Amino acid sequence: MTHWIRFRNAGGSIGFGTLDQHSGRVVQHEGAMFDRPRPTDISFAADDLTLLAPCQPSKVIALWNNYYALSQKLDKAPPQHPLFLIKPPMSVIGPNESIRRPKSYQGKIAYEGELGIVIGKTVSGASVEEAEEAIFGYTCVNDVTAIELLQQDPNFAQWCRSKGFDTFTCLGPAIVTPGNGFDWRTANVVTTLEGVERQNYPLDDMIFSPAEQVSMLSQDMTLVPGDVIACGTSIGVGSIKDGARVDVSIAGIGTLSNVLAV
Amino acid sequence: MTHWIRFRNAGGSIGFGTLDQHSGRVVQHEGAMFDRPRPTDISFAADDLTLLAPCQPSKVIALWNNYYALSQKLDKAPPQHPLFLIKPPMSVIGPNESIRRPKSYQGKIAYEGELGIVIGKTVSGASVEEAEEAIFGYTCVNDVTAIELLQQDPNFAQWCRSKGFDTFTCLGPAIVTPGNGFDWRTANVVTTLEGVERQNYPLDDMIFSPAEQVSMLSQDMTLVPGDVIACGTSIGVGSIKDGARVDVSIAGIGTLSNVLAV
Repeated sequence: MTHWIRFRNAGGSIGFGTLDQHSGRVVQHEGAMFDRPRPTDISFAADDLTLLAPCQPSKVIALWNNYYALSQKLDKAPPQHPLFLIKPPMSVIGPNESIRRPKSYQGKIAYEGELGIVIGKTVSGASVEEAEEAIFGYTCVNDVTAIELLQQDPNFAQWCRSKGFDTFTCLGPAIVTPGNGFDWRTANVVTTLEGVERQNYPLDDMIFSPAEQVSMLSQDMTLVPGDVIACGTSIGVGSIKDGARVDVSIAGIGTLSNVLAV
Repeated sequence: MTHWIRFRNAGGSIGFGTLDQHSGRVVQHEGAMFDRPRPTDISFAADDLTLLAPCQPSKVIALWNNYYALSQKLDKAPPQHPLFLIKPPMSVIGPNESIRRPKSYQGKIAYEGELGIVIGKTVSGASVEEAEEAIFGYTCVNDVTAIELLQQDPNFAQWCRSKGFDTFTCLGPAIVTPGNGFDWRTANVVTTLEGVERQNYPLDDMIFSPAEQVSMLSQDMTLVPGDVIACGTSIGVGSIKDGARVDVSIAGIGTLSNVLAV
């Protein structure tokens, strides 16, 4: 498995490359992450870099009710097709960036730790096999939600608004490519709030697998490199106090850490 | 008022420029439409060009229940804040491009004629006055909907899916800048199906005005140049038979014509 990151270096330049988790060294690459990236002879200590969101999606497709445990807890039947909303590109932030409370909103803000699928190829109408090949890798997602807005209007569930605010899609720290030691089927999503574990659920409880999601969603809309599908969350969602830190960890990917700014 | 268009010329090159409606001539511009475009000495007869969607939004924000007449007909209270969903960039097509029925869907496909606001400046947390200045212009929108999917799942209204398919956001034919003869307050949206009028509603029946929409939405999320807000539709929505043509016309902007491909 390879860990791909985007970063800003000490001089302020933005780049991307691969992170060696043992040595902590980053090898800068040139070209494009999703189109024949080539290693350069420039490398950095990861500690000297500011990590950015590892990709810049044209859209983030966020699933609801995609885990059997949560569907049982909510007493909602598992869906026949992925149920989703779309989060806008400007909602994306990277590791260690602050989640900002909307000025207009004083209600509860919820964390949702999730697996994120990162698309590597333009794909439309894909079979499950083709979809598997279109998956570049996986990252951690905190799908932040202004939860009290969701049902504020009795006639219209405000999924896009409650999840679409600037800074409400935390991505990172890295994109791990599948194979060579990383298999989502054996991983858990672990979410901690101020260091206390709140979510710890197995990814193999997923209703629609990553390749099934990519295949089914690609029947609806063309997916392009860098797009992210947030696979939905499971039980243990809760709210973040102002100033509190949320860590979303998936073994093999890393830990995505973000604070809700005071 | 100026009519901005994007086009492909006979040689296959993509460009943008201004259309003189009397002479039918297009003056190609260089630079960027939203950042100090400069006229070139190249011009074309509009008839020799293929019109494209007049902008390439990073997101399309589509409002629901934004006209008093429709809210009365639906017996839903006017909302306190714009109710919206997000349509992905790949859903956008231009004038005369075909709407494509999703292979997976045999149900009714609805037209919705709407006014589209095109954003000209990056804007966040804008006052209504600042929002007014961030509006580059207006275009026609056909907000196409796979209407039978919307309530297919009893637990989750599928707004993003039913409206997010490739080719389900028709934009054009031009973006008209406000002032000098164009005022949305005095215009109607007229939608015809196979030449028969189905919608004809005044824009001044809008619940949230364009500047109010831009101001309120910009409190939630940063809007960027080229983004489109579809202002919602009013009464007269209906379904399109395969092969039928829908024309959305707004006096001063033009007519947006699209066929649902057989």
